[in-house]
Amino acid sequence: MPNDKALEFSKTTVRNLNTLVKRMPRWLENEAPKANIVISTRVRLARNLEGHAFPNAAEKEELYAVIREVYDALASSPQLAGPMFLDMLRLGKLERKFLVERRLISPPYAESDNPAMLVVGEDECLSVMVNEEDHLRLQSIQPGLNVEEAWRLMALLDDDLGEHLDYAFTDQFGYLTACPTNTGTGMRVSLFVHLPALALLEELEKIFKKLAPSEITVRGFYGEGTEVVGNVFQISNQLTLGRTDDSIVKRMEEVGEKLVSLEDEARERVLDEQVVQIYDKVYRAIGIMKYARVLTSLELLNLLSYLRLGFDLGIFKNTDRSFLNELMVTLQPAHIQKKYRDMEDELPRDVHRAHIVREKISALF
Amino acid sequence: MPNDKALEFSKTTVRNLNTLVKRMPRWLENEAPKANIVISTRVRLARNLEGHAFPNAAEKEELYAVIREVYDALASSPQLAGPMFLDMLRLGKLERKFLVERRLISPPYAESDNPAMLVVGEDECLSVMVNEEDHLRLQSIQPGLNVEEAWRLMALLDDDLGEHLDYAFTDQFGYLTACPTNTGTGMRVSLFVHLPALALLEELEKIFKKLAPSEITVRGFYGEGTEVVGNVFQISNQLTLGRTDDSIVKRMEEVGEKLVSLEDEARERVLDEQVVQIYDKVYRAIGIMKYARVLTSLELLNLLSYLRLGFDLGIFKNTDRSFLNELMVTLQPAHIQKKYRDMEDELPRDVHRAHIVREKISALF
Repeated sequence: MPNDKALEFSKTTVRNLNTLVKRMPRWLENEAPKANIVISTRVRLARNLEGHAFPNAAEKEELYAVIREVYDALASSPQLAGPMFLDMLRLGKLERKFLVERRLISPPYAESDNPAMLVVGEDECLSVMVNEEDHLRLQSIQPGLNVEEAWRLMALLDDDLGEHLDYAFTDQFGYLTACPTNTGTGMRVSLFVHLPALALLEELEKIFKKLAPSEITVRGFYGEGTEVVGNVFQISNQLTLGRTDDSIVKRMEEVGEKLVSLEDEARERVLDEQVVQIYDKVYRAIGIMKYARVLTSLELLNLLSYLRLGFDLGIFKNTDRSFLNELMVTLQPAHIQKKYRDMEDELPRDVHRAHIVREKISALF
Repeated sequence: MPNDKALEFSKTTVRNLNTLVKRMPRWLENEAPKANIVISTRVRLARNLEGHAFPNAAEKEELYAVIREVYDALASSPQLAGPMFLDMLRLGKLERKFLVERRLISPPYAESDNPAMLVVGEDECLSVMVNEEDHLRLQSIQPGLNVEEAWRLMALLDDDLGEHLDYAFTDQFGYLTACPTNTGTGMRVSLFVHLPALALLEELEKIFKKLAPSEITVRGFYGEGTEVVGNVFQISNQLTLGRTDDSIVKRMEEVGEKLVSLEDEARERVLDEQVVQIYDKVYRAIGIMKYARVLTSLELLNLLSYLRLGFDLGIFKNTDRSFLNELMVTLQPAHIQKKYRDMEDELPRDVHRAHIVREKISALF
């Protein structure tokens, strides 16, 4: 990174990353609308600056120029409330994987060796990737189903930045973006929904087909091209061109409500028709978590799915949602390596994960 | 059954069956040679009476005649030491299934509606099926690897019966039997061996191929055509014609010793190379047994296999082999139905099995 004042933020990168390792994001908290089914709501917005090539076509110097241009606007944003800045080029593979797991950056951003700056608001509910596919990718996360609130906070940030920055915008297309599917409002809403009962009843395929595939994409826990684990699905709007922000917000809130009511109804049916099998699955998950000596992160997500279901169905009360969310986030591979000890091989990580899970679950059950 | 004095044993059939339900066979006991790997040794001997058609070709009256002829010889046998007699025609499907699970009768014997009499010695180590495929099928079971002892007790019984009965025998073929593979000595030796380490190392196929398939048959836990469960294999000699009893006894004792040494060596290797994974499998089995709410008998056998391995490897000491053997035998489907409550459907049985296992394992771990 060139040695100039506007880029001094680079120096605190490692310290800031360690702060992230130590704390928990606010969107893991306990109480939120429909938190029994929707884990979190995320809104991402793509914005570009007038007069600069898109990051994938830009020279290094131009990317630094973008960083310089946005740094002040982001630092003084009241919405980010004293943000942390991270110089992506200071971060190794493990740290980048940690940020992907933490849902603060996208996998392509982690792979890129472009000059780039990640900006994280106080409680991790708001953040900005600078020089991802677009100059700015604003992100807003809320616990539970809450598209409106996630959007409200994001719009405030967007408006504020818009006053300081010259966004690329045309009357015909709206906000211009590197990828045409984002052009228009540039907004993507994603809901992380936990649908174990619909999965058990094998009704998901039918439901996802009905969700208008031209409008909605369904992906696994870790986004595009990843396996479904722990019955958690990422539901996103597909296109943004020709839609207004408000129509997307309204539509995704509706999609969320619809999935919640279908899953709620499926849970009642499952309790009605397969109560013994459900208790069996839930308690087996507890048994395995209490006794396993090796636990992959994927298996843990599947086990947590049943614990979450057990809690939601009132089968037991001696835990809460934020505890389960915390296990889900903090026991991912790079989180374990950063938080506990850097173990390059999978087996010692899986052993360590089993050890932590055993202690935490044995304290409760 | 015709109403005559020699057939009066029929009346005590139900009482005798209930006695079997309540007690445990001696071959489940704790200490025996190589009991860490060989669960039990069984010897079966086929004998037929001169002057009667083989059971499958005989009329009812002739089968009753066979029963009458052998009744006295069996009742007064010192080896059977006050045997119990069961009239197979008095037993329903469930009771017959119970006797199959208990290894006192063969599946075809359970299916047959021929007049037939089962004779069970005091501790279940010796028993006789009358009118199975042959007029007499003598069975001797010993815990652990002990072909010689099983054979010694069986030979005493055989000699004794031979003095009272006129066995079908020719100098050319030896003892005549309904199925030619039994002709000659009529003896089949079966070893029930637990080979979890060889299974984990995926070396069984290779070893079984080497075991001279012309001589030895390998089957699953429940005999011919059944799936392998719980890593328990039934190893039997194939042919009896042209062999002497002693050569079969010697050969099967050798086969047992060979498998024991291969499995012993595999266990050391597994502990050396995969210690964490072994502990994981063993403790997961405990976790599932402590927490499952539904447990099929096949899954239980697989879980018990890991508990047995854990005990054999010294991973834990708070149980013993006879406890594990007892769970293996008494929680089979018909045993549960006879011992606890007659539940026709599988699910309530599986729930009941899980309940018993949970209580018994929770008392130990």
